[in-house]
Amino acid sequence: MRDVAIIGVGQTPVDEHWTVGIRHLMLEAGLAALRDANIETVDAVYVGNMLSGEIAGQSHLGALAVDFMALNGAEAFKVEAACASGSAALRVGYMAVGSGLVDIVMVLGVEKMTDTSGRETTAALAAAADAEYEVSQGISFVALNALLMQRYMHEFGWKREDFAQFPVIAHANGAHNPHAMFQSPISAEAYARAPMIATPVGLLDASPVCDGAAAVVLAPAEFARTLNPAPVKIRASAIGMAPLAVHDRKDPLRLEAAIASSRKAYRQAEIGPDDLDFFELHDAFTIMAALSLEAAGFAERGKGVQLALDGEIAPQGRIPIATMGGLKARGHPVGATGIYQVVESVLQLRGLAGPNQIPDVRLGMTQNIGGSGATVITHILERMT
Amino acid sequence: MRDVAIIGVGQTPVDEHWTVGIRHLMLEAGLAALRDANIETVDAVYVGNMLSGEIAGQSHLGALAVDFMALNGAEAFKVEAACASGSAALRVGYMAVGSGLVDIVMVLGVEKMTDTSGRETTAALAAAADAEYEVSQGISFVALNALLMQRYMHEFGWKREDFAQFPVIAHANGAHNPHAMFQSPISAEAYARAPMIATPVGLLDASPVCDGAAAVVLAPAEFARTLNPAPVKIRASAIGMAPLAVHDRKDPLRLEAAIASSRKAYRQAEIGPDDLDFFELHDAFTIMAALSLEAAGFAERGKGVQLALDGEIAPQGRIPIATMGGLKARGHPVGATGIYQVVESVLQLRGLAGPNQIPDVRLGMTQNIGGSGATVITHILERMT
Repeated sequence: MRDVAIIGVGQTPVDEHWTVGIRHLMLEAGLAALRDANIETVDAVYVGNMLSGEIAGQSHLGALAVDFMALNGAEAFKVEAACASGSAALRVGYMAVGSGLVDIVMVLGVEKMTDTSGRETTAALAAAADAEYEVSQGISFVALNALLMQRYMHEFGWKREDFAQFPVIAHANGAHNPHAMFQSPISAEAYARAPMIATPVGLLDASPVCDGAAAVVLAPAEFARTLNPAPVKIRASAIGMAPLAVHDRKDPLRLEAAIASSRKAYRQAEIGPDDLDFFELHDAFTIMAALSLEAAGFAERGKGVQLALDGEIAPQGRIPIATMGGLKARGHPVGATGIYQVVESVLQLRGLAGPNQIPDVRLGMTQNIGGSGATVITHILERMT
Repeated sequence: MRDVAIIGVGQTPVDEHWTVGIRHLMLEAGLAALRDANIETVDAVYVGNMLSGEIAGQSHLGALAVDFMALNGAEAFKVEAACASGSAALRVGYMAVGSGLVDIVMVLGVEKMTDTSGRETTAALAAAADAEYEVSQGISFVALNALLMQRYMHEFGWKREDFAQFPVIAHANGAHNPHAMFQSPISAEAYARAPMIATPVGLLDASPVCDGAAAVVLAPAEFARTLNPAPVKIRASAIGMAPLAVHDRKDPLRLEAAIASSRKAYRQAEIGPDDLDFFELHDAFTIMAALSLEAAGFAERGKGVQLALDGEIAPQGRIPIATMGGLKARGHPVGATGIYQVVESVLQLRGLAGPNQIPDVRLGMTQNIGGSGATVITHILERMT
């Protein structure tokens, strides 16, 4: 298949957007991406979204997207893989351009989680787990992560406080990202004092409920440079899967899907973890950040937390994560998150990340997790100039 | 890109499946397709579904599908385009195999609409329309179709009774399909006597709320014959779009998306409507059948109903439709419908359609409509032997 490149990116601020609807969020991010790519229309729009049917009573987002953006003639539909919906849509765009069926594609991630009661959002999010065998027992998504974190602490001897650097570093990075939901640093003391949501998951272990949209424009790499002076190539796109319910996994503390997804991506890109300059991982909860670092080959089993304690995940560390705030501080509008990760990675690779710029970056990786780790989608991105 | 062929098909009966869940429906159809393809596993599963989040509280169907079918190592996610979700998933499978990224793909359509009150299902289905500008006015999906039918009758001088042959022929065909929800013929008199749902749409103008799953297995055409003695090639895959809300369309009685989708498909396959041996169209309502015949080039504007009156849509007519019962009699489990259409077309092209077999068929077309006509997805299929 043809190589595929990203020639434009756009994003809305992540926030509680009470005054606009899903269509406006898509429009803002989509038009920004078109402007950035210096083009006026596309052949296709693939929308990553999880919750619009449940929360807004609006399915059929593909049709709404091309209609409201006046992208007449473009084909469109929605792609869903729980919180990994954005990256799943990117994979569809990658296949569409790669196959030669279409040339220019917009991949748009969007989520509006706040136009409802908090309880409804929690229930809708739980649909990412096994409805008949997990959710029916009364478990929420936060509780599933609490079980994993508790087990991790028990198994490997960590204390809650040892996780503090994940949100501390994420918030430090978010402070310089104008699109981040939280632009204020937090301290390790604040982390320790944070109220418990589901022990041992405290408020500052968890990413926020929020709204946002992000978009990328894809084109064949062979003529990407004629459209954009600094395109970014998709070097790998890979999906790994694991059983939907945590209780069906042989070892809940091994993210088998992330291991498979990372390995496939490394193989396709012909690189290893040491070649990466940064890693936009899925820090929806601190425990997921730790497990992701282990699964992607940056730490031994049970040692992901050590990387954080040692500051190796900070911008100047061995493997910077959450460089623009991550899910914790930029925010986690679930179906949009995978595209936010890619937009931020492209900004890094183009040298446009402002105060958060990691110097001399060439290769970055994004990893987007659906559910408690049943679907893990990885993309490796490379600067083409 | 590579040519893509269908090497296996499977389906559950369409019915009110009170005793099983979504996972069991997927399993039954998926395993049947694997058996038919004579293979044990696949590289990917793309699931077409609209309502599982809203009705079953279960998102993340891709992960559930590979988990419950034990297709370890296969990637998976869900694709949604309202009632055209099944065909949208097929397009993803077509791109995936065509691009060369994967070789063997299962495309699975599934819907379980009955595990809820009828009112909830009606509300969930309305999410296919414009939530903020149509549904907020109180309109349901049946009512939208009633407006179109009323306008069509007014504009072109047809009476309600003139639509009778659509359900009469669909039910006559469904009577010989063991997977159809309705296996009993109806008369034109029964149609005329049917209770009104939303004038002029009566009970027998509308497809039923129901459950079902259908699956196809795709492979590169170049080695399809080594796997199956009678593979079917996908000669065209095309999407056309129109404004989401009916009131935003210049002429509500022209299905612009179906016109665009049909034209793209004819161009890709290098054929015209006269070359087709049958047409599995989207007869969710009789008015949609009439408008689809016009949009695909089988009748002039306002004359779709005449084709039905003349019996040209019957198995022995000029362009047989709903050959296994169509949405009306086989049933319309919305996200699964596009795959049912393809499964039935493959049975026709292989000569396995039993009493419903259309003689000497080589080329068939399926067309799947999302919403009131905002997304229309067309596939043209050809016998390879």
